[in-house]
Amino acid sequence: MERLKQQINFIVEIDKLKSILRRSVLMDKSRNENDAEHSWHIAMMALLLKEYANQEVDVLKVVKMLLIHDLVEIDAGDTFAYDSEGYKDKEAREQQAADRLFNILPKDQAEEIFELWNEFERRTTAEACYAAALDRLQPLLHNFYTEGVSWKEHQVTSDLVLERNSYIKDGSETLWEYARDLIEEAVDRGYMKK
Amino acid sequence: MERLKQQINFIVEIDKLKSILRRSVLMDKSRNENDAEHSWHIAMMALLLKEYANQEVDVLKVVKMLLIHDLVEIDAGDTFAYDSEGYKDKEAREQQAADRLFNILPKDQAEEIFELWNEFERRTTAEACYAAALDRLQPLLHNFYTEGVSWKEHQVTSDLVLERNSYIKDGSETLWEYARDLIEEAVDRGYMKK
Ligand SMILES: [Ca+2]
Repeated sequence: MERLKQQINFIVEIDKLKSILRRSVLMDKSRNENDAEHSWHIAMMALLLKEYANQEVDVLKVVKMLLIHDLVEIDAGDTFAYDSEGYKDKEAREQQAADRLFNILPKDQAEEIFELWNEFERRTTAEACYAAALDRLQPLLHNFYTEGVSWKEHQVTSDLVLERNSYIKDGSETLWEYARDLIEEAVDRGYMKK
Repeated sequence: MERLKQQINFIVEIDKLKSILRRSVLMDKSRNENDAEHSWHIAMMALLLKEYANQEVDVLKVVKMLLIHDLVEIDAGDTFAYDSEGYKDKEAREQQAADRLFNILPKDQAEEIFELWNEFERRTTAEACYAAALDRLQPLLHNFYTEGVSWKEHQVTSDLVLERNSYIKDGSETLWEYARDLIEEAVDRGYMKK
């Protein structure tokens, strides 16, 4: 069973995603969030909020994208949304990671994951736009419900947060409206600077 | 937007799944696994191994089941697979948890999750049998690749492991064959007692 062996090797390898830490803090403030549980959370959001996608979406495809979207961070690490320096070589680092990781799988499955990941990164389809919106909305929720722990730590302003999250709108006008209200409320409550 | 508010309340509430610890240890042995990352991992397995399901399955339904299957543990806690005492009132504790948690959602979505969870628990459909097989196979992999950390700690024998995992067969004959080989190999290597 060479094929099954390759699949199991991949399943064992991606266990490492559970040790890739994000800047987000759990809502009970106990510790930083990791990429695996983040991926679970946004996949749940994709199922629960799909009525708000701007266009009708293939929700299975969205869930697949979200489950795999951060795998490259096993090698490339998490790049903080407000880290301009880290963004410079993000693409090259992540492409190399994808080459190593996805090719552990049998060719047909490696190709499927490459395609899903590229689609997610390019945000050119309704599914990718909706998926990317959730990937942005979730850390906003974490920041809001921890009274801005990570916003305060990195001293971000609401202008920057609005700019970096504005493509939520491409996936869902409704969720973008919700996000803007949340950011406004966060400023009012002193969770971040204007 | 009363409906969106209910959905967000649920999304915030289920963040707690990230703090529900399992007996399984991460493959790098650094710490115990939590339910959220476990759910992510088996959802990935469902996508990658679906060719081995005994019957053709609706993989979106399988993934939904796996993403939500442990939510009740937010209130009821994790019941270890080899804890007969804990299993006595497991059903009652989990039913109560489901009532509280799922009803945070709008009625239609609460009903869908109740149905998915009941189907998973009853294992009466092809989807539920395949999903349950993965929920069993994943901790076997974790145990094997940590050289039996959790098997040794709880002094389980291969007879018991074979018995408790035998319903993998109902979801996938191929994965059951693989699991039996893994258990045999684990005994040979001294990861667990015969
Ligand atoms: Ca990321």
